[in-house]
Amino acid sequence: MRGAAYTGNGTLETVTVDRVPPGDGEVQIRVAFCGLCGTDIHIVHGDMDARVTTPLVFGHEMSGTIAELGGGVEGWKLGDPVTVMPLLWDNSCPACQAGHQHICQNLTFVGVDSPGALQEYWNVPASLLVALPAGLDLRAAALVEPTAVAVHDVRRSELAVGDHAVVLGGGPIGVLIATVARHAGAHVMVAEVDPGRRARIAELGFEVVDPSQDDVTALVETWTGGVGADVVFEVSGAAAAVRLATTLPKVRGTIVVVAIHSAPRELDLQRMFWRELRLLGARVYRREDMERAVRLVADGTIPADFLITGTVPLEDTGRAIEDLTGGRAMKILVDVGAEVVR
Amino acid sequence: MRGAAYTGNGTLETVTVDRVPPGDGEVQIRVAFCGLCGTDIHIVHGDMDARVTTPLVFGHEMSGTIAELGGGVEGWKLGDPVTVMPLLWDNSCPACQAGHQHICQNLTFVGVDSPGALQEYWNVPASLLVALPAGLDLRAAALVEPTAVAVHDVRRSELAVGDHAVVLGGGPIGVLIATVARHAGAHVMVAEVDPGRRARIAELGFEVVDPSQDDVTALVETWTGGVGADVVFEVSGAAAAVRLATTLPKVRGTIVVVAIHSAPRELDLQRMFWRELRLLGARVYRREDMERAVRLVADGTIPADFLITGTVPLEDTGRAIEDLTGGRAMKILVDVGAEVVR
Ligand SMILES: [Zn+2]
Ligand SMILES: [Zn+2]
Repeated sequence: MRGAAYTGNGTLETVTVDRVPPGDGEVQIRVAFCGLCGTDIHIVHGDMDARVTTPLVFGHEMSGTIAELGGGVEGWKLGDPVTVMPLLWDNSCPACQAGHQHICQNLTFVGVDSPGALQEYWNVPASLLVALPAGLDLRAAALVEPTAVAVHDVRRSELAVGDHAVVLGGGPIGVLIATVARHAGAHVMVAEVDPGRRARIAELGFEVVDPSQDDVTALVETWTGGVGADVVFEVSGAAAAVRLATTLPKVRGTIVVVAIHSAPRELDLQRMFWRELRLLGARVYRREDMERAVRLVADGTIPADFLITGTVPLEDTGRAIEDLTGGRAMKILVDVGAEVVR
Repeated sequence: MRGAAYTGNGTLETVTVDRVPPGDGEVQIRVAFCGLCGTDIHIVHGDMDARVTTPLVFGHEMSGTIAELGGGVEGWKLGDPVTVMPLLWDNSCPACQAGHQHICQNLTFVGVDSPGALQEYWNVPASLLVALPAGLDLRAAALVEPTAVAVHDVRRSELAVGDHAVVLGGGPIGVLIATVARHAGAHVMVAEVDPGRRARIAELGFEVVDPSQDDVTALVETWTGGVGADVVFEVSGAAAAVRLATTLPKVRGTIVVVAIHSAPRELDLQRMFWRELRLLGARVYRREDMERAVRLVADGTIPADFLITGTVPLEDTGRAIEDLTGGRAMKILVDVGAEVVR
């Protein structure tokens, strides 16, 4: 069968992978769609060469149907539509023992640290399966995993009904956080430098500002009646956004760092102190976040048509990565199953 | 009567102040002792010239007895031993309306933004009084205000019994935080660069490390059985301490920023994200913190003899500021009342 693999040296190739039966406790999924995210881009660009083993079939934002059950698997049947929570923890490290399995100190991120979904058939432990409702469009279902990130971020922020939330960065995760925050009853403003993205995000009904031109601090001050934002989500990964972030929250407000910052960032600790602000790191998701994400995708809360700006066959995964790198797309799905020839 | 005043241009002078009767709702306190802190040093060095009005009789870490009651003051009588919570809020800003009066957006810090305790008789609103138990040494009682800072910081950290806490910086506030954290049932390690301070802090029974020499990250890892610290208090104000701070907490651990950082600091947001850490600003205290501080000073939990390294007459306030600036002292008290000649 076919797969898309990172083969090292910044190279992506369509490869032939042996299809092997699922082991005990595993299921084999016929992959339908697999979205590409920032982590996938980093893998293909070689930024994660120290971490990954090549050739690596990557991909983890997927949807599919169960094709085969391994020994001892119960509660699932052939054809069930599913997605996967791609986290494997050791259940023994201090983080796991404290109940934070999702950020296990020895976490295996499936699709990064082990083979992922960009192959026609994918064997995973049945414990990672997340059920999808019958009839849910499997294209939209590929958004469940990034939606779970947003659900986790909003949950961690302790955002409340009526709060004002500012999202710094209007890429896919930023739009998902904005959507989940609004669904949680918040007023939401998105700061995004790209004019095309801003225009489209405004069409979704969000307040939009341009941090490269607007005085976002003053705009948030006015927007919140002089109070300041309850929660700021830093999704951009930009140093300038970190400088901006501390100027926006109310006294005792919260900043959630969702983005990956590749270098230490200058942070205004004086402002953190003066207003007794709170800064929280937030990473991946827990099972309850995945399950909530399924419902938000299924009930149409997540604007799937807005987010999915393209779908490509497996052979064009490399071109999709290029389009994403250039900022010419929001979310591109790889249609893994469509051209199966066996 | 005599007072110590900052008269501008980095100059401290002993001045003569008119003694005026307390107004309605005020009391007049015969000041006994007044401790000097980092804010006082900043005032005298001219660092706060943009904020203060000169001449400024400063000082806010005080003890004394009630000398006179203004009109309408009830519940107090002449001779009552008291300290003062030196915060005046407007009860109308967004912070006050949200219940965070202690960090009111228009806070008047008494002794900085209005006249303080370095004068023989001091008029303050009766609402700021905090009762001291009969018989409490008024020297020790001058430690109530900085102890309240420590109580507030520990409360904000949500430190729990059995936790491991690391205090970065072994000055007076660092030692007070360490003491309150231990009182709250935590294991406490103090990182301090000065060998003299380290030796004395070790005598108080705390673990001590030298961040300029020791691998504090590895030591904390070992000390916590591989888990990491539950709480890190950043009390030093040093850029290096901020870099160190993110390496110490456990997954989902907390960093409390207590120090004033005069410039933005480089912070490892990747580590904040990866371990889902929490960084909290903590400033001043609430009334319940002051009242808890009174009890901790009164019952001997606070090592007053350790902390108070000197007592000087009012006329020597300038020399005391110099000694504190040079790091030659922990806490110096000004004996305001001892040499009263009227
Ligand atoms: Zn673990
Ligand atoms: Zn206020």
